[in-house]
Amino acid sequence: MRSVAEFTRMWADLAPVGRTASSGGYRRFAWTREDHDLREWFAAECARRGLDVVTDRVGNQWAWWGDPDAARHAGRPGVVTGSHLDSVPDGGAFDGPLGVVSALAALDGLRARGHEPSRPIGIVNFVDEEGARFGVACAGSRILTGVLDPDRARGLIDDEGRTMASAMTVAGHDPAHLGRDDEVLARIGAFIELHVEQGRHLVDVGAAIGVGSDIWPHGRWRIDLPGEANHAGTTALEDRLDAMLGVAAVTIAARRAAQEHGCVSTVGKVQLTPNGVNAIPSHAAAWLDVRSADAGAVRTTVAEVTEVAEEFGGRVREESWTPTTAFHPVLVERLAAGLGGVPVLGTGAGHDAGILATHGIPAAMLFVRNPTGVSHSPEEFAEEADCLLGVGALVAVLADLTSDPTDETP
Amino acid sequence: MRSVAEFTRMWADLAPVGRTASSGGYRRFAWTREDHDLREWFAAECARRGLDVVTDRVGNQWAWWGDPDAARHAGRPGVVTGSHLDSVPDGGAFDGPLGVVSALAALDGLRARGHEPSRPIGIVNFVDEEGARFGVACAGSRILTGVLDPDRARGLIDDEGRTMASAMTVAGHDPAHLGRDDEVLARIGAFIELHVEQGRHLVDVGAAIGVGSDIWPHGRWRIDLPGEANHAGTTALEDRLDAMLGVAAVTIAARRAAQEHGCVSTVGKVQLTPNGVNAIPSHAAAWLDVRSADAGAVRTTVAEVTEVAEEFGGRVREESWTPTTAFHPVLVERLAAGLGGVPVLGTGAGHDAGILATHGIPAAMLFVRNPTGVSHSPEEFAEEADCLLGVGALVAVLADLTSDPTDETP
Repeated sequence: MRSVAEFTRMWADLAPVGRTASSGGYRRFAWTREDHDLREWFAAECARRGLDVVTDRVGNQWAWWGDPDAARHAGRPGVVTGSHLDSVPDGGAFDGPLGVVSALAALDGLRARGHEPSRPIGIVNFVDEEGARFGVACAGSRILTGVLDPDRARGLIDDEGRTMASAMTVAGHDPAHLGRDDEVLARIGAFIELHVEQGRHLVDVGAAIGVGSDIWPHGRWRIDLPGEANHAGTTALEDRLDAMLGVAAVTIAARRAAQEHGCVSTVGKVQLTPNGVNAIPSHAAAWLDVRSADAGAVRTTVAEVTEVAEEFGGRVREESWTPTTAFHPVLVERLAAGLGGVPVLGTGAGHDAGILATHGIPAAMLFVRNPTGVSHSPEEFAEEADCLLGVGALVAVLADLTSDPTDETP
Repeated sequence: MRSVAEFTRMWADLAPVGRTASSGGYRRFAWTREDHDLREWFAAECARRGLDVVTDRVGNQWAWWGDPDAARHAGRPGVVTGSHLDSVPDGGAFDGPLGVVSALAALDGLRARGHEPSRPIGIVNFVDEEGARFGVACAGSRILTGVLDPDRARGLIDDEGRTMASAMTVAGHDPAHLGRDDEVLARIGAFIELHVEQGRHLVDVGAAIGVGSDIWPHGRWRIDLPGEANHAGTTALEDRLDAMLGVAAVTIAARRAAQEHGCVSTVGKVQLTPNGVNAIPSHAAAWLDVRSADAGAVRTTVAEVTEVAEEFGGRVREESWTPTTAFHPVLVERLAAGLGGVPVLGTGAGHDAGILATHGIPAAMLFVRNPTGVSHSPEEFAEEADCLLGVGALVAVLADLTSDPTDETP
């Protein structure tokens, strides 16, 4: 089968890009050299299939089989699939790339079976999904849909002090025209994102493929804790204001509250100032991530952490908040039924599909079984057989959604 | 008085070098551009006084008034004063530079009063005293005295992954010949280091100047805590191994144990991997600094912290340990008496004077009052009047130690 061979070849192509020898994981951050190489690769794969790539004003890459503008003017906007190619620090090979590679392989599969789509099929590579560099996840789809203000986006700063605007400019992308782009959005009649599962639901129920029903409410908070710079060896304990003690208390409070209220919470990023062995920390920033199926539980957890932070003179600011995102119920049901009644599951992870769904575009996700549930890690994994079942499922879904010329939805 | 004008001029010269606008503190790390500028400045100040600068194999800079080799062969090795010019991250202006500038101003003062030294007087700028870049404090004097192994020193790695050997090479210094240097050490008959006080003892007793009696036992430990990389949003709490929870526990244990046992302890530096907002930390390194007048109390504190670290699967390694360092008792008494009975005090901070004392060189320190006790901070301060009293004290001490040609000691 051509799609199988192509899947394997593409997967091998991507394996070395941005891989770090020390961890075996990936560092593919938006608007870097690695990202550039991945974008070139995407354009080349599309060209290989006779598809032009159009980069929108934000930097997301779109390739269309069929004319999306003619179709949408005819009231039949296209069906888009794809995902992203960037990664978290020391991330795995699957989160993102599996959806992009599967989209390209599914196109091969559709063509191999002689499918003539009744509406255009698009493949997308969303830029900066992980937010690993500038701290805002799904930046590409958030800017596209107007959820993330262009000025705020341009001014976001990475750990080296470079703004997103500057990073885009260095990468050859003009940041002047960021903003909601209704032209691009109008072309999308439905969006299907295939993704490796980031938990163990499919393993537990013994299924290779599942359909996503919703994304849990989730948010990120930045906690700033004050300290007073001083010598670690000569300052009496009672004279100290040590910002690290606040970080410790907040970390323990976050775990305890999450346990109590049925959330998951993480303090995954900490920055101490000056971060010197013999200097009392004069400032600390810690980032808190909390998610749950129940938004109220998240709010309660954050409130309890805030209370502890304030006991240490700290301040908690919400950096992002996403309420429950339900995928399109009709589409979800159609996918699950069309795939022979595969499991339907929610997820704690955010995705571009969620951003588009919130914007009102019919969207759904396909999940591919992850034998350990591990993700955002070099250990992230899916069996090749399951990945190929994922491609097959995507072929079936795309064929279903582009077969009936009278079909009004998804 | 020429020494006053010179002090003020030199202090103003140094004020902008390595100053960071954001904190108002200094970042003067060994073998950087800033360090290079400071070393050039030191050489120029010595040249201005007709003194040649000799850089030893490690990189410490020495300027001699008189011929140190002729003198030592005659059994009358010189009296050296000075300190260092590097800083901790966001350090203050005084820690280090006050000793160097005072040394130069004291030389001016001695000459202005027509002093003819009975033995050579040396001024030293020790390299890399703070260990801010490579993690080992007093690297310049430790390598000089053979306490720090040359191979270990060359292989020390900074936060950017550069070795000390490479950093030296980039700075134009050949790292091939590091190691104990008896030629250089034999020239030092006595070492007097002037330093801003890093506590509030002198304020409390109402004295501008004090003499150091000893340095508390102190050490640094690196604590490595394991974790498992995983997605912050999708991994159940019970499936997590989160390295940050270990850091929090260790931080709290370190403070609690220090309080109980009468030490000061600090977790001032933390490195999370991958340090991403939505990634569970897969590894953490935390550095612990513990000091006390009582070495047993330090050991007990570290043992209790180690127990907690091990509960989290962590490992604690000693990076450095310095037992109580007593300065030369005769010299200490002579200085205190010669200055009219100024207070004698111990300190929790390490100094090059302590390294030389441990090596058997008669050494002592002069402390200048610090109105807040704050150091290793942009807020570190000493009144100019007190600094000038410090220069005066150093003039008196140097004059005393180099006046009597029959004087066998210090």
